[in-house]
Amino acid sequence: MVKIPIEVSARHVHLAKKDLDKLFGKNYHLTKLRDLSQPGEFAAKETVKIKGNKGEIKNVRVVGPVRQKTQVEISKTDAINLKINAPVRLSGDLKKSGSCTLIGPKGKIKLKEGVIIAHRHLHIEPKLAKKYNLKNGQFVSIKIKNTIRSLTFHNVIVRISPKFRLAFHIDTDEANAAGIKKHGTGILLI
Amino acid sequence: MVKIPIEVSARHVHLAKKDLDKLFGKNYHLTKLRDLSQPGEFAAKETVKIKGNKGEIKNVRVVGPVRQKTQVEISKTDAINLKINAPVRLSGDLKKSGSCTLIGPKGKIKLKEGVIIAHRHLHIEPKLAKKYNLKNGQFVSIKIKNTIRSLTFHNVIVRISPKFRLAFHIDTDEANAAGIKKHGTGILLI
Repeated sequence: MVKIPIEVSARHVHLAKKDLDKLFGKNYHLTKLRDLSQPGEFAAKETVKIKGNKGEIKNVRVVGPVRQKTQVEISKTDAINLKINAPVRLSGDLKKSGSCTLIGPKGKIKLKEGVIIAHRHLHIEPKLAKKYNLKNGQFVSIKIKNTIRSLTFHNVIVRISPKFRLAFHIDTDEANAAGIKKHGTGILLI
Repeated sequence: MVKIPIEVSARHVHLAKKDLDKLFGKNYHLTKLRDLSQPGEFAAKETVKIKGNKGEIKNVRVVGPVRQKTQVEISKTDAINLKINAPVRLSGDLKKSGSCTLIGPKGKIKLKEGVIIAHRHLHIEPKLAKKYNLKNGQFVSIKIKNTIRSLTFHNVIVRISPKFRLAFHIDTDEANAAGIKKHGTGILLI
């Protein structure tokens, strides 16, 4: 039985350099609040406001470092509340994804695309992937067992990279449906 | 393969007669907006506001007819947003459940207990239950298959009554996690 650590991703924003400048001021640098599980990634002290076609959400955490493209990750619940037509997508797959306005202390930007609901995925390093006989892009299932809201997630996409550390990432809707908070443990079903 | 119709329950409130009177005025009667799937149950035109320890949610649908005890059903996402300590419970099991304030057009009430997150459950009539060899209170699993967020719900409690009609009830967090909107179809796994 292969146990998998589960991490719950709250809504967050990755910013491109040019968008960081627009929202926080020219040549602004993000300040690290804490490291995240995936090496190099960190929660920044900075937050932004997301404005949708209806309503807004304040204090949305920026995740660093800066990326090539700005990407906003929200839950389906958020998407409904904000009236944003956000698809379930893998990180980086932003073509024709949702639109929103991001508001920072120094300015705002209108994102034509970039808002997604993260596709549930398993981060794994090559050595472990080989051990468990997993291929990049493969789908697996992961079961979460507890006394009240046990759940098996199917359609979990395997993402292999030497930069990754073993973690199953789900969003807050998925965590709430499974009765877990920020962290949990699952069982890999291939 | 036994197919099960799935229904998504949005947040809603069942009211006791005395609480209906306090919120809407003495001897008030609920007005039917539309019938719900379970015989006798209906969505009322009336809505109330739920106030938690933090924030509030407006326009929460009242479900009729009146009940012995007032019961508020919200999602875990709502419970977090409202800072209400709501447990996952079966309908009617309200002892030491969450507290809130309900606000109507004519008054408000402070509920010491009554706020729950509905335990996922399968409504079924006795004849069908017999056919599928299901007992009241038994746990089953129900799988939802789609291309992007397939899920198997475990801990589904079976509730048998001649007043019920076959339906698997989940809340909005569970629906969002499974990639379905108001309705769907599942497969019974015993």
